[in-house]
Amino acid sequence: RPAKQMSYSNRGKTLEDDLNESNQYYLSNGIAVIHKKPVPIQIVDVHYPQRSAAVIKEAYFKQASTTDYNGVYKGKYIDFEAKETGSHTSFPLKNFHEHQIEHMKSVVGQGGIAFVIMKFTAGEETFLMQSESLVQFWDRMLSGGRKSITKAEVESCSIKIPLGFQPRIDYIKAIDSIIS
Amino acid sequence: RPAKQMSYSNRGKTLEDDLNESNQYYLSNGIAVIHKKPVPIQIVDVHYPQRSAAVIKEAYFKQASTTDYNGVYKGKYIDFEAKETGSHTSFPLKNFHEHQIEHMKSVVGQGGIAFVIMKFTAGEETFLMQSESLVQFWDRMLSGGRKSITKAEVESCSIKIPLGFQPRIDYIKAIDSIIS
Ligand SMILES: [Mg+2]
Ligand SMILES: [Mg+2]
Repeated sequence: RPAKQMSYSNRGKTLEDDLNESNQYYLSNGIAVIHKKPVPIQIVDVHYPQRSAAVIKEAYFKQASTTDYNGVYKGKYIDFEAKETGSHTSFPLKNFHEHQIEHMKSVVGQGGIAFVIMKFTAGEETFLMQSESLVQFWDRMLSGGRKSITKAEVESCSIKIPLGFQPRIDYIKAIDSIIS
Repeated sequence: RPAKQMSYSNRGKTLEDDLNESNQYYLSNGIAVIHKKPVPIQIVDVHYPQRSAAVIKEAYFKQASTTDYNGVYKGKYIDFEAKETGSHTSFPLKNFHEHQIEHMKSVVGQGGIAFVIMKFTAGEETFLMQSESLVQFWDRMLSGGRKSITKAEVESCSIKIPLGFQPRIDYIKAIDSIIS
């Protein structure tokens, strides 16, 4: 009787959950130091009750000026955005903001490594696309072209990251192939 | 009549204000890409009013698991904590947390550059101390030694950062002397 095929199915977990777990694995094993940045908040009102912790009573979500994750791997600065789509056929660009694209350009200009980790949730397929490619598709949109990257384009301009057990999303291997 | 001496006095501005301005200067001039991380918040309750932005109604400050600032300079990963003291004679270690020290060690282990920018507010003196030195003073405390770094020790183990006009705190010059 053939062994059952290992299933790494992951329904219900977000890309962010998987990346946070992967980063924890990298950190614990001395492989890389990469953290999710906290969500930026505009705090309007804070109460300071006696004998207990300060309570934020009014605050708003601010638009992030950079990307989701950054850190260091083998001395190199790593910076990336993580995005999911439910589409089967293309990756929409509307989820990116101009300042995120500008941030990635600045990072690359400074010798860092910037990319996006894209997940097509329907097929649980994950890709790492370097910011240089993302910028090309972004500029195509700005000059009147399509507002998304076709699945075929993602496949030909990215590194596919196989879904694993530990770490779930072993994107460091993809970075190795970039820097080698 | 002699020209008045330029004054860079800065009463009322915090170290963080000055560093944010300096980072903005570095970014605008293509010198470095370094940002303050958002303050981590534990969100408990969010309201979603019709036709207006989501409002956070209850949230708490979380202890930061890393440091205040990070980014990239000449391809190198930069990571630092900024701290002020009102003391004239020593820099207290009680403002650092064990996990911040551990984070700096991990960064150095991965080939990044980690340090603390310390300001003695009374004399407006600012120093950059590399994490390797900070860790030594931290370990001295853990083994029963003093709970602070004397001013003389700071002076001999750090690079003094002169207060300037633009950028206010030109710590990139100190990093140059570290990496050269
Ligand atoms: Mg994201
Ligand atoms: Mg601080």
